[in-house]
Amino acid sequence: MSLVVVRTVSEVREHLAPIRHDRRRISLVPTMGALHAGHASLIAEARADSHFVAVSVFVNPLQFGPGEDYLRYPRPLDSDLDVCRRVGADLVFAPDVKDVYVSDQRTFVEVTRLGDHLCGPFRPGHFRGVATVVAKLFNIVQPDRAYFGEKDYQQLCIIRRMVQDLNLGIEIVPVPIYRDVDGLALSSRNAYLNEAERTAAPVLFRALMLARKTIEEGERKSSVVREAAGSILAAQPLARVEYLQIVDPIEVQPVDEIAAEVRIAGAVWIGKTRLIDNVAAAPG
Amino acid sequence: MSLVVVRTVSEVREHLAPIRHDRRRISLVPTMGALHAGHASLIAEARADSHFVAVSVFVNPLQFGPGEDYLRYPRPLDSDLDVCRRVGADLVFAPDVKDVYVSDQRTFVEVTRLGDHLCGPFRPGHFRGVATVVAKLFNIVQPDRAYFGEKDYQQLCIIRRMVQDLNLGIEIVPVPIYRDVDGLALSSRNAYLNEAERTAAPVLFRALMLARKTIEEGERKSSVVREAAGSILAAQPLARVEYLQIVDPIEVQPVDEIAAEVRIAGAVWIGKTRLIDNVAAAPG
Repeated sequence: MSLVVVRTVSEVREHLAPIRHDRRRISLVPTMGALHAGHASLIAEARADSHFVAVSVFVNPLQFGPGEDYLRYPRPLDSDLDVCRRVGADLVFAPDVKDVYVSDQRTFVEVTRLGDHLCGPFRPGHFRGVATVVAKLFNIVQPDRAYFGEKDYQQLCIIRRMVQDLNLGIEIVPVPIYRDVDGLALSSRNAYLNEAERTAAPVLFRALMLARKTIEEGERKSSVVREAAGSILAAQPLARVEYLQIVDPIEVQPVDEIAAEVRIAGAVWIGKTRLIDNVAAAPG
Repeated sequence: MSLVVVRTVSEVREHLAPIRHDRRRISLVPTMGALHAGHASLIAEARADSHFVAVSVFVNPLQFGPGEDYLRYPRPLDSDLDVCRRVGADLVFAPDVKDVYVSDQRTFVEVTRLGDHLCGPFRPGHFRGVATVVAKLFNIVQPDRAYFGEKDYQQLCIIRRMVQDLNLGIEIVPVPIYRDVDGLALSSRNAYLNEAERTAAPVLFRALMLARKTIEEGERKSSVVREAAGSILAAQPLARVEYLQIVDPIEVQPVDEIAAEVRIAGAVWIGKTRLIDNVAAAPG
């Protein structure tokens, strides 16, 4: 089956209505495009699970703050379509901004508490923008399942909670982080890195892995674990730490004493590029 | 066809899935119960337009402020079911609070700007609670159309904007206010009034009608129109005015110079009972 590319909300609805009526299972992979192997793994997983795979490609202005990289965020649509074709997507929804935000957006979906830590305080309004556009995409596509990468772990938790709280009836499928051979989590923003920065970038993953090892070896105090990981980051002159935090895996709240599975998450600036990553860890 | 009464979200979904699959048009009339002739007119209109009519009966705690009448709000379910049967509803969804709010609600739908005037400032959090529960009900029932009374005019505007902004793909049908013979807008809260209060209550409608007449006769200044209407209210010792405002009919913003159709809306306290009402008016 060949890839269908649609640009408007009404085209999506028209195209999907008969598929839904045939009771075929529809999956959605929401993306901002600039697709890499991590996105391809999301689409491939959706392909394996579903009758019909829709991919949205939309750089959502609502989730970028002032001074963030909305304008320079890469938009290589042709190569994105190649990725979608290769991995077997059925439909790409690549709307213009004006088709998604027809009039001034006055309605916002806000998930409280889960955005209070990690990226939340550093990106005011970001998760509100994410939850709002994902709610819109869910209502446009009405998928049975939607696939989200664990790299944006806090986003995953927030979307999962939104679906539960708003009775959206969509199964949220988390997909493990896709990493380069040196451990760097794939991200469309890795393209911003120069050679020296790219070489330095895996320091975040190494710090998170040390934190995990420290927990697995029996350390229970988050402060001790964070200090160990922080020393690795401090030794890399190209890295500036934004946060390194240990949180519970549901409500994303900081944990002082590690008694159950946790998520260790960090954000670092490598030059002018902000990178995030996370790993799970359970007490040994 | 006999009336089906369901209590849980999963029962609603189960019951409606085959109806949706048969492409029958589903309408929803969301209510807080204590159904009167105004509600009956909503259900009757839905009945005339649709294959399948669902009525929700749920007193939503999220839209009541502290000190408001959540606990004493009437809940006469048996007589509500009689009304639904008589007017020909197909299904009543009457959930317990714990079925609607399974865990702590962390996700809220907020419509900005449209709640800034009229009831908004006097009922902080009210419209957030309304928008959130209506979003939930829409996602549970997935109707093609939903019916709202014009008595809660600001609510109607907010829900309409939410549907547009979140791409819910539901047609919102406004239904004119149902009035008693003396003009009093029917409301479940009218049951709170004693005899003297009930006699005094139509003063709000009379004030709104005078405002309308003043506009139709050529007055363009809102301040003049409001003063005329206010003098009627001031003459009724049992009435205490909360607001009397002239707003545009889409974004519910105050209008100083009346150049197009407006909505005249008021809230008064009659004893311990808060009543609202509104009428449309166009410059003569």
